[in-house]
Amino acid sequence: MIRMSSSFLRTLREDPADAEVASHKLLVRAGYIRRSAAGVYTWLPLGLRVLRRVEQIVREEQDAIGAEEVVFSALQPRAPYEATGRWTEYGPTLFRLQDRREDDYLLAPTHEEMFTLAVKDLYTSYKDLPAMLYQVQNKFRDEARPRAGLLRTREFVMKDAYSFDIDDAGLDASYEKQRAAYQRTFERLGLPVVICRADAGAMGGSRSEEFLHPTPVGEDTFVVSDGGYAANVEAVTTRAPASLSAAEIAALPGMHVEDTPGASTIAALTDYSNEAFPGQGPIAESGEWTRYEMLKHLVYLLTHPDGSTEPLVIAIPGDREVDEKRLEAAVAPAVAAPFTAEDFARHPALTKGFIGPEGLGLENSTGIRYLVDPRVVPGSRWVAGAGEADKHVYDLVYGRDFTADGTIEAAAVHDGDPAPDGSGPMRLTRGMEMGHIFQLGRKYAEALDLKVLDENGKATVVTMGSYGIGVTRAVAAIAELGHDDKGLIWPRAVAPADVHVLATGKDAAAFAEAERISAELEAQGLTVLYDDRPKVSPGVKFKDAELLGMPTVVVVGRSLAEGIVEIRDRAEGTIEEVSPQTVVDDVLRAVRG
Amino acid sequence: MIRMSSSFLRTLREDPADAEVASHKLLVRAGYIRRSAAGVYTWLPLGLRVLRRVEQIVREEQDAIGAEEVVFSALQPRAPYEATGRWTEYGPTLFRLQDRREDDYLLAPTHEEMFTLAVKDLYTSYKDLPAMLYQVQNKFRDEARPRAGLLRTREFVMKDAYSFDIDDAGLDASYEKQRAAYQRTFERLGLPVVICRADAGAMGGSRSEEFLHPTPVGEDTFVVSDGGYAANVEAVTTRAPASLSAAEIAALPGMHVEDTPGASTIAALTDYSNEAFPGQGPIAESGEWTRYEMLKHLVYLLTHPDGSTEPLVIAIPGDREVDEKRLEAAVAPAVAAPFTAEDFARHPALTKGFIGPEGLGLENSTGIRYLVDPRVVPGSRWVAGAGEADKHVYDLVYGRDFTADGTIEAAAVHDGDPAPDGSGPMRLTRGMEMGHIFQLGRKYAEALDLKVLDENGKATVVTMGSYGIGVTRAVAAIAELGHDDKGLIWPRAVAPADVHVLATGKDAAAFAEAERISAELEAQGLTVLYDDRPKVSPGVKFKDAELLGMPTVVVVGRSLAEGIVEIRDRAEGTIEEVSPQTVVDDVLRAVRG
Repeated sequence: MIRMSSSFLRTLREDPADAEVASHKLLVRAGYIRRSAAGVYTWLPLGLRVLRRVEQIVREEQDAIGAEEVVFSALQPRAPYEATGRWTEYGPTLFRLQDRREDDYLLAPTHEEMFTLAVKDLYTSYKDLPAMLYQVQNKFRDEARPRAGLLRTREFVMKDAYSFDIDDAGLDASYEKQRAAYQRTFERLGLPVVICRADAGAMGGSRSEEFLHPTPVGEDTFVVSDGGYAANVEAVTTRAPASLSAAEIAALPGMHVEDTPGASTIAALTDYSNEAFPGQGPIAESGEWTRYEMLKHLVYLLTHPDGSTEPLVIAIPGDREVDEKRLEAAVAPAVAAPFTAEDFARHPALTKGFIGPEGLGLENSTGIRYLVDPRVVPGSRWVAGAGEADKHVYDLVYGRDFTADGTIEAAAVHDGDPAPDGSGPMRLTRGMEMGHIFQLGRKYAEALDLKVLDENGKATVVTMGSYGIGVTRAVAAIAELGHDDKGLIWPRAVAPADVHVLATGKDAAAFAEAERISAELEAQGLTVLYDDRPKVSPGVKFKDAELLGMPTVVVVGRSLAEGIVEIRDRAEGTIEEVSPQTVVDDVLRAVRG
Repeated sequence: MIRMSSSFLRTLREDPADAEVASHKLLVRAGYIRRSAAGVYTWLPLGLRVLRRVEQIVREEQDAIGAEEVVFSALQPRAPYEATGRWTEYGPTLFRLQDRREDDYLLAPTHEEMFTLAVKDLYTSYKDLPAMLYQVQNKFRDEARPRAGLLRTREFVMKDAYSFDIDDAGLDASYEKQRAAYQRTFERLGLPVVICRADAGAMGGSRSEEFLHPTPVGEDTFVVSDGGYAANVEAVTTRAPASLSAAEIAALPGMHVEDTPGASTIAALTDYSNEAFPGQGPIAESGEWTRYEMLKHLVYLLTHPDGSTEPLVIAIPGDREVDEKRLEAAVAPAVAAPFTAEDFARHPALTKGFIGPEGLGLENSTGIRYLVDPRVVPGSRWVAGAGEADKHVYDLVYGRDFTADGTIEAAAVHDGDPAPDGSGPMRLTRGMEMGHIFQLGRKYAEALDLKVLDENGKATVVTMGSYGIGVTRAVAAIAELGHDDKGLIWPRAVAPADVHVLATGKDAAAFAEAERISAELEAQGLTVLYDDRPKVSPGVKFKDAELLGMPTVVVVGRSLAEGIVEIRDRAEGTIEEVSPQTVVDDVLRAVRG
């Protein structure tokens, strides 16, 4: 029994100054967490109970698929992370430190390397596989912008699991097991999720899906189509138009340079084209020009993990912007920054505002890397800068007049864009990443030489999967999903207490009865938060109960004299009057369903 | 049920190369832990189960005294630790790091500062007190010499609790509660402990006791007397002889300088004195000289936390050495290093081998700090160097011929020394620190301005206690205490499984019966480790069972055909033959006592 009179619990009437989202405001106001530094939080008693219950659900679903729990240290030596390249590639998000001997260490952001080495240490044969291991442990990431309370922190509890298989079929089976375990986990946590294709990013590997919880406070954007396609925007691939054949291309008019005075923006160029060359645009019948075919050229400075830099020109249809997250995912582990005036000064071949394909490409005169949107297919016709002020090239045909070093998925995805699998138009939604499952493949096993002998006695590289759930973030997401303007509303599965018993008024009999009811509920195996504070008004107790958010509230007060106590349902907002003689059974029924 | 055929568990026949002590060797060989870096370990599945059970016992005893559980982050900002001086005083043992903004952080070695700030954040009145909070959390300390597996690591689980009271009487009461909880905790863990007075060290504060577990592999030395005195040698205070009165001192012979050619060691000086001045020594009747009165002067360079240095001369009776740990505790937070030849060159007033009190002391000609053993009382007579080669001063009387800046407890404690409280001679024993309780007093509350209003509305500084148990180390200590040359012997309270069931031989019936017994035991609430490996010989299974150390082992093998299965008691070494029909009940009786 948690007695509020002596518990380390104080509620606040004011929102914390730095809080942006409801979960952050309410978890702090209700005394569940406290900030100790930017992106670093303390779990106070009630918060810790929620965290432990979430952890336990995650753990049970891992155990149920035969994953075994271990725990690795947060402090890890540099060498294994150097071997896989992550020491460098992880960039400033990795907390690095030195010990007293000036040896390099890191605080692990995830433990692929260490799990790989542990399996290498213990296992030698295909007969030892498959293996599935997990831990529930504190991770450290030096996020650039910690935000929103527990939604993005720098030290947080994560469940990370890893699978080890002898072949691709085994990896697929392990992956499916985890995928199903994740579905059950989020269902038990009461968190709706959409399973989205994800970019594998810096983790390497192939198949990768995110469990995104749709919420307006999410940092991710994902798409879904009616036909069942779902993907993080970072992973959306573009449905490109058909290429023309060589014969079709040969039939197109030749490219020609035109004066386009002052048309240094896409909008101005489109307007100018419709004025100067009316009816010659690509729109059927009207011959109108649109922003789409005004091929936009953007210049970035790429910085590679080893510190080296190079310019990169990206061309995308003029009706789209670059999506920073898609660009980031596309160039990872390198980092792209927009070209500065100084960068332009160092590259006179690039005339800002009038850049076109002329001379771009690693094999061409500038030697500058040049990537185009996947919609730029052989035979597609474009308008682009002519490389000098106030001139543009028209009827520029890809594959005939210019080529690029490759394609890049960097253009923003628009609501209504067609899904790449032909399953219809896509809708854009905000979401929060709750879990992520990856087929890492052999990247880590190769880097760290994890091999086992196969059936023929031949050393074979093991193939791996990696599966993470943000436990700390799940607490925030549950709080965000379950609240109203009065406070938190915990689902029964993770509530810090099953029942909140309030003794109200000044009558000693009410306190005695509330005490008895609390004790009997505890004896029945429930956890009770008992508001036994002697000199606190009923109004304050009701307000605190709403803020704290236990699913069931029992009020023992003035009407006890008439043989009545109240059972309030926090989520439904209902009040039921029952007899003190039956209240324990009534509550048990409510809690156990 | 943990099936050995598919569990992430491999036993090793060879001891790890770096293992010094049995617990380290056996925990690695039995597959409980793996080293990942110097002083940093991974918990494998069986090891993690032991750790969690130990944590749970610790937690239950904290809950039982009304302590509330919270969790602080390991990553902490510099400022609060700067306010209390620990950022500097903790020295190289503190892991320090910077984040991407180059702000200073540390990995907390303990959390006095953060708990103090949390209470300051929530509490305002004496009515809120007493408060007792604890956490079970990973601590980081960059130990100079990590050793002996889990006995001294750089990342480890610790239970740290803190009490907050309005006055000294409250602190005493909180301290006694924790003291009793610690006794119950170690009793449940099966770890005998001696409660020893301890040096408060860098933590500040007054009353302080360590729970030392007597073991030859312990790093600490403690003393006990028959009369009940017990203390860590670092905390032993010297029972000094009585001082002489001024009149008695006046009656003593005057000091005199004598030639002592070649007597540059205590032994040589004693021999020389007995030869040159026979019968003039202090021993009654014989007049013999002993090493005791040859006052030994030792020179150190003290380095203070701010980096400043100063020389320090220590004088102790010639029959004792300096105990490095006592010296370390006595000068903390400064650090003492023996004077080097270069240091001597910089201080020509100090003639190595013939140093005496002449000119020593902050107020005297050298200005060098001078501290003496507590046995150097007014009226005590000594022989000491005369400050030049081959000369010593005899009948040098403290209080008449020389004085010091103070006393220091740095001389080694000898077996048989009298206990300071008069409770008889002390015996020296090796021990391992399992827990430590401190009365911190107001040091942290003052540094961080933790005040509450008292009954009269006056802001009053809170007084605190700090209480730690090394959970990781407890696992090692239990393993160290419970083992034989064949392997580990877990007490039932913390064993990773209650029963180890072995199916031996090739008979499918034995495997089926072992499976049934395992399942029934699990259904009864026991945890079963089931050796279901199909092609492993009985010999290997027996050896593994002995190495792994479950308290009860059930063997289902060849004699099943005769209606017999075996119950083996790992600790007793007994074998009982029972019927398969009764074995579940027999095991339940054995496990539940």
